Order: sequence, then structure tokens, then C-alpha cells
Amino acid sequence: MDFKSKIKTIEWQDTYSRMVDQTIVPYEYRYVNITSGDAMFDAIRNMIVRGAPAIGIAGAHGVILYAQELEKEKFTREEFVRKLIEKAEYIKTSRPTAVNLMWAVDKQIEVIKASDSDIEGIVEELKQKAIALENEDIEINKRIGDYGAEVVPEGATILTHCNAGALATVGYGTALGVVRSAYAKDNTIQVFADETRPRQQGARITTFELAMDGIPVTLITDGMCSYFMNKGMIDMVVVGADRIAANGDTANKIGTYTVAIAAKYHNIPFYVAAPLSTIDISIKSGKEIPIEERAHEEVTHINGKPICPLKGVNIINPGFDVTPHELITGIITEKGILKPDYKESILTALSK
Amino acid sequence: MDFKSKIKTIEWQDTYSRMVDQTIVPYEYRYVNITSGDAMFDAIRNMIVRGAPAIGIAGAHGVILYAQELEKEKFTREEFVRKLIEKAEYIKTSRPTAVNLMWAVDKQIEVIKASDSDIEGIVEELKQKAIALENEDIEINKRIGDYGAEVVPEGATILTHCNAGALATVGYGTALGVVRSAYAKDNTIQVFADETRPRQQGARITTFELAMDGIPVTLITDGMCSYFMNKGMIDMVVVGADRIAANGDTANKIGTYTVAIAAKYHNIPFYVAAPLSTIDISIKSGKEIPIEERAHEEVTHINGKPICPLKGVNIINPGFDVTPHELITGIITEKGILKPDYKESILTALSK
Repeated sequence: MDFKSKIKTIEWQDTYSRMVDQTIVPYEYRYVNITSGDAMFDAIRNMIVRGAPAIGIAGAHGVILYAQELEKEKFTREEFVRKLIEKAEYIKTSRPTAVNLMWAVDKQIEVIKASDSDIEGIVEELKQKAIALENEDIEINKRIGDYGAEVVPEGATILTHCNAGALATVGYGTALGVVRSAYAKDNTIQVFADETRPRQQGARITTFELAMDGIPVTLITDGMCSYFMNKGMIDMVVVGADRIAANGDTANKIGTYTVAIAAKYHNIPFYVAAPLSTIDISIKSGKEIPIEERAHEEVTHINGKPICPLKGVNIINPGFDVTPHELITGIITEKGILKPDYKESILTALSK
Repeated sequence: MDFKSKIKTIEWQDTYSRMVDQTIVPYEYRYVNITSGDAMFDAIRNMIVRGAPAIGIAGAHGVILYAQELEKEKFTREEFVRKLIEKAEYIKTSRPTAVNLMWAVDKQIEVIKASDSDIEGIVEELKQKAIALENEDIEINKRIGDYGAEVVPEGATILTHCNAGALATVGYGTALGVVRSAYAKDNTIQVFADETRPRQQGARITTFELAMDGIPVTLITDGMCSYFMNKGMIDMVVVGADRIAANGDTANKIGTYTVAIAAKYHNIPFYVAAPLSTIDISIKSGKEIPIEERAHEEVTHINGKPICPLKGVNIINPGFDVTPHELITGIITEKGILKPDYKESILTALSK
């Protein structure tokens, strides 16, 4: 397929990282330049950049930014390497659930450890690696999109939750990469986007990027998914992933598990679309995936204004949930669609 | 039980209706006086008063308000009666899904038709009937509460969706009536309240009224329900109803069906709490219940501010969904808890 998306979410720019500020989408579509390692840590933590693959690239950029800062100090090469690896490990703690962050930062740590260049050379190699990861991310997404498009029925309505789109990646998207590739073949398909409370990535970001690319999209609130499934208006579900365990259990944005249960009840195929870098084979099942607890204000406030009483009300705000593998029809990767038994199909894909 | 709630949602006041303005809860807790029939129509339509039983009382009040207006015209008794019944039928169209509205207005139409008084006498009889319906509503809710409390496990966490509380009724509540009666017996129980997008009755109203009455409440977003069920943190679900078909299929606020599916998947009891006036035996199954389509702004705006792009995005906003009877553990009424087969148990309860 050759669908051209207008969106480039994050890109290394010679000495700094340029990214779309996703906290202000859809009110504004604006780039911010992240010029220090600590600023990148905050950008990831505060979700200026979000989406597992995009966070991975942001982490890789963060390592370069710290490297540029350390380069200015009068460290020996040995001190530089030790301090830079410390900083790289620190970046990994900015968000705990998406494994792509750890994966991409580890790629940079490998570059540092494998390099026989001087400090300046290491910095240059980290830049080259980041750019390679960016290009690879788009290529992988297009392959995911093309594999996924094969299982999209003609004229399908595809439900998605949160945003696993161009704005969750460097560009093109994983779940929405499937949508883009399918739309390139068949422009009668359409998307239903769950709002995705509390952070409303569906309402704010998925609708925005699909509208920008001219793909028909209907916004619904999270609780409505079963209503439309029952009416026969949803043909398949495709979502992204923040971490996939060795058995196929998938952590994704809170609310995904509820959609998966509803899809099962209505016999609607439920697909996860994610690069193989999302798979964490060190983790046997979803029970071991750490779930980020986020600020209460995400639940109690919208656009800075309270939506509930602020006294006498408890809040719990898990950022993710785990969809058990038995609810997942297939995992769409850059090496094809993995099917149950996932323990086997994952190992096979990783060894290809 | 003798739980004392502080809330009186709607009350006839000699010549006008006084109600809590629920569009501004929880930011303000303020009464508004509704002094004309048309103003009552708008108050129902615009959800200044909401919740099936409260809407019923509001409809009964609306008939009095129109009667007071017609009383001032120089109509013959026959003209007065004809015009008043027309107005009463008109009030029924203010919201289509909650059958209590039709039920309560029909009670007033019966009063009009059965009366042998003059015009002044009819108006007086309508007032007496409205006050009787108010008192009956609270009595019925307390009976629902007491029956329901019998199936609440010790120390239970009860999940509810939307607001079927004191603020959905004259006072005390249906689903939250069960909570109040259970709490009077066992103050270790607690409530998890679904936010209930788009109108956020859970976030705004359920949390508010439970906090006001000192009952522990945790606010969650709609998509989170399965997460907490999976963690074993939810012991039962209790929701209200806007219309129950003869087979037990239950229309309630959009999102209820999704919660019911999640409860079934986790083997958690799912109860509907509603007065028998909510049952519409003229309707065989949920497929025949009309579902109100509401304004797109309820989805696209929160507190007057857009939460999504306003161009290039489609919206569908069904106000209710239907939970099929097979997902319902029991229907808690003022005449006990109805169990499957609902066709039989409903008929038996109605003939008691």
C-alpha cells in the first residue's frame, strides 16, 4: 500500500529532538524542541510524547541529549561512558509500562558499550542509531499495516481504543497503520474511536490524526462500545500495545480489557498491532507487567476544570490494563500475524 | 434500616415545583423553582431533573402547572379537561426512554378522567396525587433498599453506573437506596462509581450524594470497571433502570450493558434496582424500547469546552443501552427481588 500520512511525530534534528506536543492536540498542532536530557525525561513523563513506539524513540533521543551535555564536561572517556549509562538507565524510569522505552534505550546502551570511538564519536554514533531507529519504526509500522490490512473485511468498521496511530509512533501508526493500509486498498472502511478516559487520547488524538488524513472517524464514549457491537456496527477491533508478555497477554491503555471482553461476548475479532520490540519475553504472563498509577487529577479534572467533588471522593487511576491472551484473535507484527498458541508463535517470530 | 439521607430532589410547593438543579451539581447544590408547564418540559428535556423516578414526579408536577395555567383561561370544564390531557400527553414526549414519565403522567390523566369536581377541584386533586406519588416514591425506594441490602455481602464493594440515587428519585434512591440500606446495617461497605460519560452523572452526582451522606465512594472512569473486577475488588454491581421489558431486558444509561458484560465475564452478580413502575409489560423485549439520541455536544464538549476536533469527526450519542435479561442476576423491586425466568416473576410481582 502507499498511504501517505501527513504526520511526523518525533524526529532528531542535528542537536535536539523535535516532537509534536500531544498535550495540546487537537486544540493546537505544534512542535516543541527538546534540548536537554532532563527535559526529555519530563516530556515522556508528562506525555508531551506518548505511545509506546514514540516513547522508545524519545528515550533514544534522551540518551543523545544527555551525551551532548556530558560531552561538554571534562570527563575521561571512561567517566563519560559510566555517567551516560547511568543517565540512560534513569530515562527508562520516566514511564514504567511501555517496554519499547527500555528496548530503545538499551539499543543506545549497546551502541555506547560497543563503540571504540572517542567521546565525540560516541555521540555521533548515538545520533546515527536514533535516526536508524526512526526510519525502522516507520518501515515496521508499514509492514504491520500491510499484514493487518489483509484481515480487514471489505467496508469494515474498525473500533480502536486510545491512540496507536502516527502520533504514537514516529509516523504511520500500528493499529492505525492497519487502518491506513486498509484504507489505501478500500476507501469504504471507517473507524470508531473510543474516547479513552481519563486522558482522552481517542477523542483528542485518534480523531485528529484520522481527520487530518481524511479517513472517516466516529467518536464514541468508552461505555458505548458494546452498544454498537450489539447493533452489528463493529466488524473488528484493533488496538496497540505497551507491553506483551511471552504468553501473549497484552498491557495497553486502561479500558482496552473492557473492550476485549465486549468483543469476545459479541464474537468480534480483537487484534493487537505492535512491533516485536513490544514483546517482553522475560515476562511469562501479564500478571508480571508493572501497571503505572497516574495522577488523580487525570480523573478528577478535564481541561483544568474539576468534573467531580474534590472532597470525600477517592480516586484510583491505573494507566493500563492487561488483556489476557485468550481474548486476542491475533497479534499483528512486522513479521506477520501471530496466532495462538502465542508462546510458540512469539518465539518463532523473534527467532526469524 | 433507618438511613437518613440529606437529599430531597423534587417536591411540590403549593403552586410550583421545587427541584435540585442537577446540571450544576457538584459545583453548586441549588434549588430551582419550576413555575410553568413549558418550563417543566424544558427542565426534563435539559436534565435539570433526571433519573427515571424523579422524571416521573416531574411529569406529574408538569400536569399541575399546565392545569394552573389553563385554570386562568375562561374554559368550560370540558374544554379544560381536553386541553389539559393534550398538555399531559405533550409532557410525555420530553424524554422517550424512561417509562416512569409516562406512568406518572398517566396517573394524573386517570385523576383528571375520574374526577367529578369542578376545575378548581381537579387542580387540587392533581396536587394531592402528586404529593402522594412523592411519598410513595420514597417508601418504595426504602423497600427496594431493604430487599437489596439482603444480598449485599459483608464489607462489599458495590459498583454502580450513572446515578440511580436520591437525586434520581424524590429521595433515598433505587440502586443507591440499596447502598444506603446496606450501609445502615454494615458501615464497612463501599461504592465504586463509574464516571458515566458523556453526561458524567457518576462523577458529578453519585459521588456528590454519597459524599454528602458520608458513604465511602471511589470514582473510576467507565473503561476501568473490568480492571477492578479482575483484581477481585468488586463484589457486586447494582444499577437503576429507565425501562424494563416484560422479559426483563433493561434499558439504562449508556454504558450499563458494557458493565453487565464485564460482570458476567468475571462471575460478579449484576442487579437492577427499580420500582415496578419501571416495568413496561406492553413491551416484550428490549429491542422494542426506544433509545433516545441526544445532542452531539454531550460527547464533544465537557464544561462547555471541546475535547476533540470539531471538524471531520462524526458523533453518535445514544442516551441508553439495553442489558439483556440473561446478564441480570436479579431485579430488586419494592415487592422483593425478581429472579429469572423474568417473564413469570414480573407478572407475579405486578399481580401482587
